[in-house]
Amino acid sequence: MYGMIATWRMAFEGVTKGRKVLEDGGCAGDAIEIAIREVENFEFYKSVGYGGLPNEEMEVELDAAFMDGSTFDIGAVAAIKDFASPISIARRLSKEKVNNVLVAEGAEKFAHKEGFERKNMLTERAKIHYYNRIKEIKEQEIKPYSGHDTVGMVCLDSNGNITVGTSTSGLFMKKKGRVGDSPICGSGFYVDSKVGGASATGLGEDLMKGCISYEIVRLMKEGHHPQEACEIAVNTLDAELKERRGEAGDLSLIAMNNKGEWGVATNIEGFSFVVATEINEPVVYITKNINGKCIHEKASEEWLDNYMKTRTAPLVRR
Amino acid sequence: MYGMIATWRMAFEGVTKGRKVLEDGGCAGDAIEIAIREVENFEFYKSVGYGGLPNEEMEVELDAAFMDGSTFDIGAVAAIKDFASPISIARRLSKEKVNNVLVAEGAEKFAHKEGFERKNMLTERAKIHYYNRIKEIKEQEIKPYSGHDTVGMVCLDSNGNITVGTSTSGLFMKKKGRVGDSPICGSGFYVDSKVGGASATGLGEDLMKGCISYEIVRLMKEGHHPQEACEIAVNTLDAELKERRGEAGDLSLIAMNNKGEWGVATNIEGFSFVVATEINEPVVYITKNINGKCIHEKASEEWLDNYMKTRTAPLVRR
Repeated sequence: MYGMIATWRMAFEGVTKGRKVLEDGGCAGDAIEIAIREVENFEFYKSVGYGGLPNEEMEVELDAAFMDGSTFDIGAVAAIKDFASPISIARRLSKEKVNNVLVAEGAEKFAHKEGFERKNMLTERAKIHYYNRIKEIKEQEIKPYSGHDTVGMVCLDSNGNITVGTSTSGLFMKKKGRVGDSPICGSGFYVDSKVGGASATGLGEDLMKGCISYEIVRLMKEGHHPQEACEIAVNTLDAELKERRGEAGDLSLIAMNNKGEWGVATNIEGFSFVVATEINEPVVYITKNINGKCIHEKASEEWLDNYMKTRTAPLVRR
Repeated sequence: MYGMIATWRMAFEGVTKGRKVLEDGGCAGDAIEIAIREVENFEFYKSVGYGGLPNEEMEVELDAAFMDGSTFDIGAVAAIKDFASPISIARRLSKEKVNNVLVAEGAEKFAHKEGFERKNMLTERAKIHYYNRIKEIKEQEIKPYSGHDTVGMVCLDSNGNITVGTSTSGLFMKKKGRVGDSPICGSGFYVDSKVGGASATGLGEDLMKGCISYEIVRLMKEGHHPQEACEIAVNTLDAELKERRGEAGDLSLIAMNNKGEWGVATNIEGFSFVVATEINEPVVYITKNINGKCIHEKASEEWLDNYMKTRTAPLVRR
């Protein structure tokens, strides 16, 4: 059995490519890297890679991580600028003996020496979003921060190796140097090939309070189905945050175990995700949490059409 | 009941000050900040704060984190340069609504705007260590990296609030921008006032593979005594790493629960730590792992004398 699961509709094209790699007998490391690069390279997805929304200084600072569930190799970059493929840099770092997590200028120096492609990741479209947001903040006195749609994936290959990867531009209008959960082992991602893997998207500052990806893998290790594991972890953290802080940020989690069984849980309305297995071509689902149970429905043609239309619609500076 | 536990002998003076704060009815947040600042400010401790050993570019880049176990507030800085009190910056960040984890230049900008003291953290003594190491690496062809003695503390106050804090200069000769476990929630630290807290020191790259501080708090939540929880977590991760990677880096953990009971486990020889409670003045112990059980012995006067003599001995450039 092989399979992939990923956060958000935006992962669809990537998962399609990744599944092809798995079908051809490729390994989970290659499949997930190719899949995430696809998302990073598509400029209309405004929370990952090229076209990602910038920080408050109008710089696109990116976070990404890779973990191999068989060797426990981990590589991650945070607050890296001006490189095209954060996930590939993270995967390359996972092969180092130490210094596996690099941030900011240090990450850029490493990427440069390793020959990774330099690229200005700030698109004209992202700049329009930035200027419009500045105007909104002034006019409507709204909070500056919004949007934190990390792509996170878990990938099982037919040899039983499982990998996980994440990539994000983080919170729109974040402070320079802000790091969320995505490059943080246990929070944004965790994987153990003996068990399964999990990845998160949502408010990184809250996701890390529960080490939620690690917790889901641990629950699967105890024998829980991925769906149960995701629901228990999301509902528990959501309740703890509300009890202690009065509110909980967005928490959406995906998981797949070593049999290719999968699960998804969220505390928001309409979290979309993509699943593919040896048996099934990639499908986009939308999920909602009804009294602690998460119900997944296939996205309608209309929803899918509308999704891409919204993403690629002309954008004007206000 | 109040109490504090901390990694390494170097925490002794800080824990002594922190315990005084607790004795006077102070809160766990103030006690731990004062305690860790004491370690950061003492220039002869070469793995934390002022006098910490530099990275391969001879820059002192510091990591620190603070977590409040009642509110789950977290603040952390990583790869921050030229500021005197990383723990205080981390604690200040924990009060922010978002952007709680800042790295490198972004962390420095925040610290500057908040009025934290700028300081060149590179001492003459650290420079001698650096130049001597460069020579050793050339002459003996040894691995450049060594030394990763994070100060990590857990603090329980008489109101039942528990905090945890970490501070480190990280791996000596690390690459610019390298981040270890210390500023990473779940790996270098975790705390839940309903249960207890834990903190780690050792090879960050390996500690994060097991989310080991989170795991210890979780084991305590299941009902394990802190000593049991530490031993289970350290022995399990040590075994998993050896099985998958052929070797395990240094893993040393401290924990205290909400009753002031404490535990320590390590996979190295002679890990020292400091404990103080309402009943007991600060004591330095040394622990060793004998077939999975960790035995703690009070440090002898001779050991203590020798410790400080070694730290403060004149250092010459070779």
